Amino acid sequence: MIYANYAATTPALSKAVIEQIRIYLEGVHLNAGRNFEGLQAGAIALRARRAVAKLFNAGDPLRVILTSGATASMNMAINGLVRQGCHVLATSIEHNAVARPLHALHQNKVIELQWLKCNSDGSLDPQEVRRAIKKNTRLLVMSHASNVLGTILPVEECMKIAREHDIMTIVDTAQTAGVLPWTTGDLCDVIVFTGHKGLGALAGTGGFVLNERAAGEMRPWAMGGTGSASHSLDMPDFLPDKFEPGTGNSLGMLSLATSVEEILLAGIENKRAKDISCTEHFMAGLANIKNVTAYGVSEPTRRVALVSIAVHGYDAADVSKRLFEKHGIVTRSGLHCSPLAHKTAGTFPGGTVRFSFGGGTTEAQIDTMLEAVAELDI
Amino acid sequence: MIYANYAATTPALSKAVIEQIRIYLEGVHLNAGRNFEGLQAGAIALRARRAVAKLFNAGDPLRVILTSGATASMNMAINGLVRQGCHVLATSIEHNAVARPLHALHQNKVIELQWLKCNSDGSLDPQEVRRAIKKNTRLLVMSHASNVLGTILPVEECMKIAREHDIMTIVDTAQTAGVLPWTTGDLCDVIVFTGHKGLGALAGTGGFVLNERAAGEMRPWAMGGTGSASHSLDMPDFLPDKFEPGTGNSLGMLSLATSVEEILLAGIENKRAKDISCTEHFMAGLANIKNVTAYGVSEPTRRVALVSIAVHGYDAADVSKRLFEKHGIVTRSGLHCSPLAHKTAGTFPGGTVRFSFGGGTTEAQIDTMLEAVAELDI
Repeated sequence: MIYANYAATTPALSKAVIEQIRIYLEGVHLNAGRNFEGLQAGAIALRARRAVAKLFNAGDPLRVILTSGATASMNMAINGLVRQGCHVLATSIEHNAVARPLHALHQNKVIELQWLKCNSDGSLDPQEVRRAIKKNTRLLVMSHASNVLGTILPVEECMKIAREHDIMTIVDTAQTAGVLPWTTGDLCDVIVFTGHKGLGALAGTGGFVLNERAAGEMRPWAMGGTGSASHSLDMPDFLPDKFEPGTGNSLGMLSLATSVEEILLAGIENKRAKDISCTEHFMAGLANIKNVTAYGVSEPTRRVALVSIAVHGYDAADVSKRLFEKHGIVTRSGLHCSPLAHKTAGTFPGGTVRFSFGGGTTEAQIDTMLEAVAELDI
Repeated sequence: MIYANYAATTPALSKAVIEQIRIYLEGVHLNAGRNFEGLQAGAIALRARRAVAKLFNAGDPLRVILTSGATASMNMAINGLVRQGCHVLATSIEHNAVARPLHALHQNKVIELQWLKCNSDGSLDPQEVRRAIKKNTRLLVMSHASNVLGTILPVEECMKIAREHDIMTIVDTAQTAGVLPWTTGDLCDVIVFTGHKGLGALAGTGGFVLNERAAGEMRPWAMGGTGSASHSLDMPDFLPDKFEPGTGNSLGMLSLATSVEEILLAGIENKRAKDISCTEHFMAGLANIKNVTAYGVSEPTRRVALVSIAVHGYDAADVSKRLFEKHGIVTRSGLHCSPLAHKTAGTFPGGTVRFSFGGGTTEAQIDTMLEAVAELDI
């Protein structure tokens, strides 16, 4: 089998992660209590917070909120930051984890919602942000990179414009955490991340990193027991408890801590260089195949390691199925939970076939993928 | 070490659960994709749904929604069922996972909120429900058993009264799933459960079971990608997708499926008989110790296997600390995330020391606990 669906999930946990899970399972796993045995759960969470804080240059580990994933995080961040009647900006390539919560708030007449028009290759002119700002604009939500087109968005420039106008910002790093270095620092108010893609952790992990402004502005959305300030029916107002009700996924946090520590140790640069080279190799090969269109910007350095294609005359689902059945190649076809991105690219509603690469991808595998696609074209 | 904090979390996973996790980790864990490899994640989720559906006699496994735990589930259920201006009833022994979401809705002027007064032993006269009903009463939320007092609430009688008046109901089975047989069937609209206590699964698991009425009435609260109806910015209206945005915790679901299958195979009856005998033994012993008050109803058959005590002249936290440091006994002291229950019992704000029992508890351990408590009394 050739796995080319890293953009959906990492296909294998590292040896270190598996080893840590084994140790955890062999011990008595007193992982959720609030007293003595709670220390173990607390220590695991703190280890995860420290690693993630380093990854995003966040300083204080308590600014890292651990949740069940990027989707829960995005719901918390969006619903916690909007106010009745405010104007919200989001790009036209957002995933449904962003688009659906915003759309619901718009339907319920809580917010005014404006989609910033990206170009058909997924790129965005940061001036689109400036042009869209109104007096009541409060929030900008944007992806760091498109999960359909691979295109990296100009997050830093957009954050600067937003900051000039005192607009809060949320960045979705589902496709970039552990893949691209984070250079935007505290300019971004809320950085949402997932554990099970580029960060190499178990599914059901993720969270968000807040700066001080967001820690104050953001209201709790999910409520429940925190083992703190238990006398009160209000959520505590300190971090991380303000946003962490209920018993957390300790084993998932352990996998996250371990894998992010590994990424920090290895550095992101080599991984990034390999991603670019894989993308370059694949795109160069595609250029020689007739009747295939590859989407997104042409420069591999402006992309993450995923490429969506259409093979003319074929349904995306059929291509994916044939690639798997004949060649054992795992891709993902369809709309990738991002109808807006497909509308932007002009590939709605048929969708595309997405190839995405990661740690285990080899040049030889990419050659096999190219041959398999070329075969379809005959 | 003597573990007496089962009400917070199960202290150890079963051999079968650990074995399944090992197998999963050894394989390529393609657990989150939406295409071919998604089949594995889908198969695990379906196994968990089937087991939980059997446990609650729910029939259709698709009525089982899998989430990150009881707290997320309770937030979804409460926020999904209330409507602007409606009147909500909840008991005066509810955990903060119920009390904090309701309190916030009340503070935000979304709902009218009324706490049904339980007796100081945690028991509730079902007629309290009838007396509290108003024209705009829409929802009753109640625990199956108190996590502070151990007292089992008359869920079935309350559900019947609610149904007569067309009131929706949510039951919190955090302390009872896998512990008490579920006999209320479809009378309850939403049954919220957690995985990491009586069900023996990993922390970060849980969910809720909906009947048909709730499936229609309940609105999605968390939104995001579902891998279905991806063309639309609205959440799908079918189960389970309507309430399952984002990538789930497959490994957690696997632990849940395995442990619930074990519980179904073994039957709950023997476990229940042992729980009652542990509680009886402990309570009988406590009765011989001066200066100790035990809370909750006196009949062990009307309780789950947890007992909260106060040792007069001692702070709860000090008692817990001494029990651990001198005898290695793990209890939980304080308010147990349930300030309302402590107010009901008259133990607010000092709290109590809670002993809770489970699969690994022995008579000899209980004797040691009793000796340790008696020693405090000298």
